[in-house]
Order: sequence, then C-alpha cells, then structure tokens
Amino acid sequence: MEQVKIYDSTLRDGAQGYMISFSVEDKLLIAKKLDDYGVHYIEAGYPSSSPKDAEFFRRARALGLKRAKLVAFGSTRRAGVSAEEDAGLRELLDAGTEYTAVYGKAWDFHVKDVIQTTLEENLDMISSSISYLVKNGRKVIFDAEHFFDGYKNNPEYAARVVDAAWSAGAFSICLCDTNGGAFMDDAYAAVAETVGRFGSDIEWGIHCHNDSGLAAANTVKAYMAGCSQIQGTFTGIGERCGNANLSTVIPLLELKLGVRTGSASGDLSALTRTAAYIADVANSALENRMPFVGKNAFRHKGGAHLDGVLKSPESFEHIDPALVGNKRRTALSEQTGRAGIIEYIQRVIPGVSKQDDGVTELLQALKDMENRGYQYEAAEASFELFIAKSLKKYSPNFEITDIKITTNTPFDDERSVTAVVRIISQGKRVLVADEGVGPVNALDKAVRKSLEQVFPQLRQVRLIDFKVRVLDNRVGTEKLVRVVITSSDGARNWSTVGISANIIEASFHALLDSLEYKLMIDAQD
Amino acid sequence: MEQVKIYDSTLRDGAQGYMISFSVEDKLLIAKKLDDYGVHYIEAGYPSSSPKDAEFFRRARALGLKRAKLVAFGSTRRAGVSAEEDAGLRELLDAGTEYTAVYGKAWDFHVKDVIQTTLEENLDMISSSISYLVKNGRKVIFDAEHFFDGYKNNPEYAARVVDAAWSAGAFSICLCDTNGGAFMDDAYAAVAETVGRFGSDIEWGIHCHNDSGLAAANTVKAYMAGCSQIQGTFTGIGERCGNANLSTVIPLLELKLGVRTGSASGDLSALTRTAAYIADVANSALENRMPFVGKNAFRHKGGAHLDGVLKSPESFEHIDPALVGNKRRTALSEQTGRAGIIEYIQRVIPGVSKQDDGVTELLQALKDMENRGYQYEAAEASFELFIAKSLKKYSPNFEITDIKITTNTPFDDERSVTAVVRIISQGKRVLVADEGVGPVNALDKAVRKSLEQVFPQLRQVRLIDFKVRVLDNRVGTEKLVRVVITSSDGARNWSTVGISANIIEASFHALLDSLEYKLMIDAQD
Repeated sequence: MEQVKIYDSTLRDGAQGYMISFSVEDKLLIAKKLDDYGVHYIEAGYPSSSPKDAEFFRRARALGLKRAKLVAFGSTRRAGVSAEEDAGLRELLDAGTEYTAVYGKAWDFHVKDVIQTTLEENLDMISSSISYLVKNGRKVIFDAEHFFDGYKNNPEYAARVVDAAWSAGAFSICLCDTNGGAFMDDAYAAVAETVGRFGSDIEWGIHCHNDSGLAAANTVKAYMAGCSQIQGTFTGIGERCGNANLSTVIPLLELKLGVRTGSASGDLSALTRTAAYIADVANSALENRMPFVGKNAFRHKGGAHLDGVLKSPESFEHIDPALVGNKRRTALSEQTGRAGIIEYIQRVIPGVSKQDDGVTELLQALKDMENRGYQYEAAEASFELFIAKSLKKYSPNFEITDIKITTNTPFDDERSVTAVVRIISQGKRVLVADEGVGPVNALDKAVRKSLEQVFPQLRQVRLIDFKVRVLDNRVGTEKLVRVVITSSDGARNWSTVGISANIIEASFHALLDSLEYKLMIDAQD
Repeated sequence: MEQVKIYDSTLRDGAQGYMISFSVEDKLLIAKKLDDYGVHYIEAGYPSSSPKDAEFFRRARALGLKRAKLVAFGSTRRAGVSAEEDAGLRELLDAGTEYTAVYGKAWDFHVKDVIQTTLEENLDMISSSISYLVKNGRKVIFDAEHFFDGYKNNPEYAARVVDAAWSAGAFSICLCDTNGGAFMDDAYAAVAETVGRFGSDIEWGIHCHNDSGLAAANTVKAYMAGCSQIQGTFTGIGERCGNANLSTVIPLLELKLGVRTGSASGDLSALTRTAAYIADVANSALENRMPFVGKNAFRHKGGAHLDGVLKSPESFEHIDPALVGNKRRTALSEQTGRAGIIEYIQRVIPGVSKQDDGVTELLQALKDMENRGYQYEAAEASFELFIAKSLKKYSPNFEITDIKITTNTPFDDERSVTAVVRIISQGKRVLVADEGVGPVNALDKAVRKSLEQVFPQLRQVRLIDFKVRVLDNRVGTEKLVRVVITSSDGARNWSTVGISANIIEASFHALLDSLEYKLMIDAQD
C-alpha cells in the first residue's frame, strides 16, 4: 500500500488566517496534539518574522515529540546580500530544527514585479540559500511559491527554479498554489510533467489554497500525479479562504484511494477529536458542516433520510462515521419526524415507543417552543430536560421566585454587581445574595450558594462557554436574544438555551437548565 | 460560448440544513432575490411534506418572477398505489407550477432495503408518476437519487431507472450524489458513459453533496462530462455537509472554464451580495473564508502578501474580486505590518504617511489592546475611532461618569430594568434614567435620551446585531466576554467592540463606540 507524508502548517500558514492569533502556549499545545495524532511534519513558525515563533522553537525542544519533525519556515535570502549575511537565514538556523523550509519565487512575474530583481538573481537567491542551510546541517524543503501560476506563464523558468533548488541540495520540493487559482486537470498535468522531468528521488510536496473551493480536489489530483508530501492545515485555516484541509484530504486519500497517510493509532479514529481540539485552541469553531469531522457531517434531519439511516446506515452515509472518530447525530426540528424524536426520548426515558400518545404531544410542544424562538439543535440538554418535564419524569424540588440584580460603576470592581435571589427549596423560603464581576456571574453565584447546600454535586459544574445571538424577528419592537451556555462537570459537557428580550432572563433560563440537567443526569446514574 | 442552467435548491434541500428554518416570508424573499440574480430554476419546496411549502406556492404566484421557473419537489408515488391515488403527487400538482421535480431511487440496494419493494415496482413507480405529471401538463425533472452509488453497485439497473424516466416523458434527468461520496474521476466516467448512452436530448442535471469536500469539484467534472443543469444551493447549505455551493461553482464555470451560467446583469457582479442576502435571511452567517464571496476571500493578513498585493493585485489574488462583486480587504493585527495599518489610518486621517512617527506608536498601542483581548478585525469602527482618538483627531464632547442598572423579576415587563446614567455634556452634569426590556436596551435608551438632544443624528442609529463570546483565558479566575455590536444608520453599517468580565460594561463600551463613530463620520462628511 502506498504511503504519503502529512505536513501540517497550522502553526505557520494557519496562523495567517483571519482572526487567528496563537500564543506560544497555544502553539506548544497544538504541536503536541499533532504529534499525538501522528503527522510527519509540523511547520511551526517563521522565526525571522516573529519573536513569538523564535521563542516557540526554544521551548519546543522540551516537548519531546515522539514522531513529528518540527520545521522552521522562512524565505530565501534577500536580493543583494549573501546567504551568510542574511539575518533571516541566520534566525532560521537559530531555530535549531533538523528540518527547514524556505520559500522562493517560481513565477517570473513575481520576481520582476514584486520582489523586483532579475530572474538570474532569483535563481541564485534560491540556490545559495539552500546550499547555506544544507552546509549548516539542515534538511531543506523548498517551497516553490506560485509554482502553478509560474508553470502556466513561463514553464521553462518554473523548471529552472525547481532545478536550482534540487541542485543546491533540497531533499524535498513543494509545489505551491499560493493564490489558490489552480484548476484540477491543469494542476494534475503540471505536477505530472514536473515529476516526470525531475524524477521521483525528490520528495514532492503539494501545498494548495482554497480560493477556488478546490484545495482538497487539487491536492488529491497532485497526489495522483506523483506528490507524496501532502501539505495543509488540520482544520483548513489559513490566509484568505484557507489551506487544503487535512481533515478532509486524509480521509479522501485513505478511504477513497486506499493510500496510507500514517497516524499513531494506525487508523483515522483520532481525526475528529484532533480537529476539534485544534479548532478549540485556535478559538475558531470547527464548521459544523465540515466534511468528515464536522458535527453535522453525519447528522440527519430530513425525515426520509433519518428513517433510511435507521434501517441501513449506508443508505445515507458514504462512510461509517466511526472510521474518522465521528458519530451519527440526528437533528431536532419540526422536520425530524417521529423516528428522530423517539431516539431522543428514549435517551431520557428508555422504553418509550413510537406509538405512545406522548410522542404526538411532544412534537406539538416542540413546534410551539420553536415558534417562540427556541432551537434545541444547539442545546440538547435543554431539550432532554424539556422531555423529562413534559412527561413528568423529572421535576425540580426547588423554585426560584424572585431575582434582583444591581450593576454599578465603577465596573472594574469585583463588587460592581449584586444579585439577590429568593428561592423555595425543601419547603423553606430563603433569600440569598452574592456579588460578582458581571450580572450572570453574580446570579450564578447567588443561585448556587443556596442550591449547593442541598445538592453538593453542583459544585462540579463549570460554565465553559457562553454565546449570545440576537434573533432576527421582523415583527415587534424589541429583539429577542438567544443565550446558549455550555457547562461541564469534568466528565461531561452539555449545552442549554434561554430566550428572552432581556439578556439576564435568557441567561437565567440557560443557567437554571444547566444546573437542573446536572441534577437530572446524576439522579439517573 | 457554452451556456448552462443554474438550478437553486436553497428553499428545498437547503431547508434541510441543520439549524435552517425558513418562514414562508423568508422563502418569498429568497425566491425574489434568486430571480433578481437570474438563476433559471428555483426548487422551492416539498408541498406534500410541509403545509408551509404548500402555502409558499399559493403565495408565490403573486411574486411576479421575471425569469426563474419555480419547481415543486416531491417523491414518486408510494409502492402499491396508483399515481392517480397518490396523495403526494396530487399535492405536487396542487402547487400549480409549470415545472415539477420528482425523485426516485437509482440504487438497487435502496429499493430493496430502504423502501423495501421490488426492482420492477420501483421502475413502475418512476414511470407511472412521471407519466401522470406529464399528462397533467407538467414539465418533469427526474432526480435519480443515489445515482452514483447505484451506478457503482449495479450500473445496468441505474441505466434502467434513467430509461424509465426518459421514456415516461421527463425532459430532464438529474444525476444525484445523494450521500456525497462520489470521487471526481469516477463521477466523470459515470456521467460521460450515461450521457453517451442516452444522448444529449435530455437536459442532464448534476446534484452533489459535500460529504467528501468534493461537491464543487464533482459538479464541475460532471459539467465537463455532459451535464448542463447545475444544481446546488447559493450558499452551500443543505443536509449534513451541505450541497454544491453555487457561489463557488458559478465562478468556477464562468471564470475558469469560460462557460456562461446566465445572470440578469450578464456578469457575476451580483454574486457576493446575493449570497450575503440569502445567508442573512437564512440566519446562517456566510463563512468568512468561503471561496469567492466570503469576507476573507480577498483579505490579506501576512505582511509579504499585503505588500505584494499593493504592488500588483494579481500577485496574491487569483481573480479580480470585483468580478464576483467582492472586494479586497486587509486584516488588522500585529502581523499586518505598516503597509496595512497605514491604509486604515489614511481612511481616518488622509495624508498620514508610512514614515510618520505616529504609525509606530499606533502599532504598539494596537499590540497592547490585542493583549487585553481586543480584536479589531470584526470591529473596524472601533478601530477607526481608536486611531482618531490616539492621533487626537477626534474627541467626544461628552463624558459618561456613572451608571447604575437594576434588573428585577418579573422579567416579562417592559419596566423590569431601569438604567440611571450620569453624563457631562457641554459642561453640564445631567442625570438621566430610562427603562427597557433588558439591561443593554435600558442603558442604550438612557444614554441616547441625553445625547440625542445635543446630537439629533443619533436617532438614526439602530442596533442590528449583537454578539457575545466568552474569551478563552486560561489565566485568571473570571472569564472575559467580548461584545460586538453592529449598528446601522440606514446608509451604512458598522461594528464596534467592548471587552470586560462584566457583560454590561463590555456592552456599554461597544454601544458608546457605536454612537461616537456615528458622530465622528458625520463630522467628516
């Protein structure tokens, strides 16, 4: 079985994605995770452009990576100075990695119009930089920037660039579609012709951007034409429309073409959780509809699809979700129909059957809640609680009857907000108060203060995410807001929702659902 | 020049996307917009599965579409009843459209295991349903569901399905990759062989899903193999990973292959705003890194890219963004470098040059703000205000010194929240109070109450979106929240940001920036 190498650039090209900003700590976490997954190369930064990246390479030596090779990235020397004099190359050496990637121009237009030097000087910049790095003990990957545009515009010059890099000692040459404009068949032809010309002693890399929506397709085509080093970012982040998404390309290669991409586990079962982890550290939510690893990748909403997949999974699933560490999900909505809703009800109350009267009533109640703006799709814990309450399988043994919250300037004071809550628990009426840095925090603290005495397990519950969206409602003068809270007790995460024109009330409902959900599931355990 | 037809299924397959829920009103707005753009077909709903869709078709007659043909969608008759007796087909006729799409199974496995009937009965379900619809005056498109899986598993049966539909009078046959598992070259071969066998009197459609990240690639391949009706959804929404994204496929066909896709304007200049409008009505934000139409599609962040693109746009842009109605953007961050920041500064203070001392200080101030959690990328108005204040080109002539907000149950009362604000304006100290449905609303009303007397133009300002995210900060006990507010004065939209552990304070900063921004730009006009 053929084997390719996976080259992840999340920490370098990914860091150039919009709204992405990694701390050194973030980079160390991601490098560790990529190594755990088992990629072959981690392009980890651009030491000459960022002191943060230089610090990363210093600290990365202590990471003890098991398998992945760290790659420091930089440009060839500047025009008009020698490689020895070039500060950027020196900083690249200072990174202290065994592997180094340098990029140089493969498109004559870029040489003349952007870096404004001669075609000959550009070739010398490439060969002298690579020679210098090789002489200093580095294994060099040459990134032929704009290779596909260069190949189209002046194929002979593009070939001379490749030749210069290879002759100077690069062991790998990566063909880059820097602008993301390459088109499948053209990309195939350019790679096939180049690999054919220079032979397969070179480790040929492919580096695509997604500006035409074809990064995954072009990458796979380039593999078919002879590339064996597959570059991309694990979740597709990167400059503009992003880089080839490795969490898409890896399963395409493995599951559609039968190519080994390597991984520590020997299979792709860590793919989804690795992507989710990286997205989390990058603070860029994984798109729900991302192929293979997204939360919706195997989620069925239409009634016919849901019925089909419950009969035979392959009827509406192109692969078994477990192969990539993902799972089947159903969507909760008016389109779901009985088959889907029943699955949820059975989670809460095992043994309920499709024919029970309660199901029809629940569908109706669900529609009513949806009309009020509730969407349980992102808040399954609220939905399960709603089912349990509707079918009288759970009722809270406390009640919160009054709330008063006061917020004062100066805000930068831990006591700027006070919350007073009146609560009836075990037949007793108590008034509790607490203070916090914000209204939700103060309210949360006051509610817990009274409840934790009776339900000590609530101490484990931590709020881990909090999202607010204004709901678009064309009718009415005040906008509704939807608050979704994600909580964790260390073992489980769950999400709850609240809706109101008042953000405090919406937060309160989501908060209360979160605590009640914890009480409900603990009672079931 | 070759011409294809664009078939949009946003209102049918798109509505099966997770978290998508269209009202009849939403559907009418989107149909109108698609017609304005100039798609050829609008697959608008599934009347037999949804009373909402049946209502849509009744009301759509009054829309006066200029060009697009509305298509009602449904399944072939059920097994064991005649076409005349089938309620679904009757409801399809009741939709009253000239064009009708019906789907039937092209994969023998699905016939046997999912709908559990015989292969012969399935063929008869297809032919009798189509004959019935044709007899009743409909132009019929047959969706060969699971065509590509069927073709792989039992190519002869898949061909018999196509034959049954064609013989019964369908003018168009759409080859569907329902599970999204098709692979480019295989898809090409299957289409080419099928079109070759049945000839090109049929209007061949292609309908792909994105489960393998190849929906756009497969669609383009199918066009190259002979399909001339291109199905998808304008923004890619749809079941699981979504449908082929027309806002990607259309420019691929037009700009990479030179195929005419039709549009009212004769070009693609309405592409970006149509996609943005549909995403807006669907309440599913357009992904920023969506090819061609995303906000980041032509946004440059890395310093070298930004410098290059300022010298020659084609150096890092595969097409001119204006061709698809998009525009170049720059990102604001520590990686942006002087070239990018200066562009922003010049918007606020024309004439500032790259060499001015102020630029270095601004870069430093920007880094400081970023370290505090500010990200100006999503809040350019706050950034412009920050520049103007830093360079002493704008200073507000009022000051808010104290705020007190009280929130009480019952929450469902317009007076559940009161805000008291102390403000110094034109040398006078005033205390104003107002009430609202939530703390931000009450605060907004109180602040405006005093300011609108002095600055009447603030009455034009409306809050149109409000987003809150918890910032991940591993250090420290209380989490920071980032509030981003989008405001509009009718002519312009702008976004502002506030950060604090207290959501009220963060909202207050974003709110105040929004009002000050309006004052600043009005003063410049």
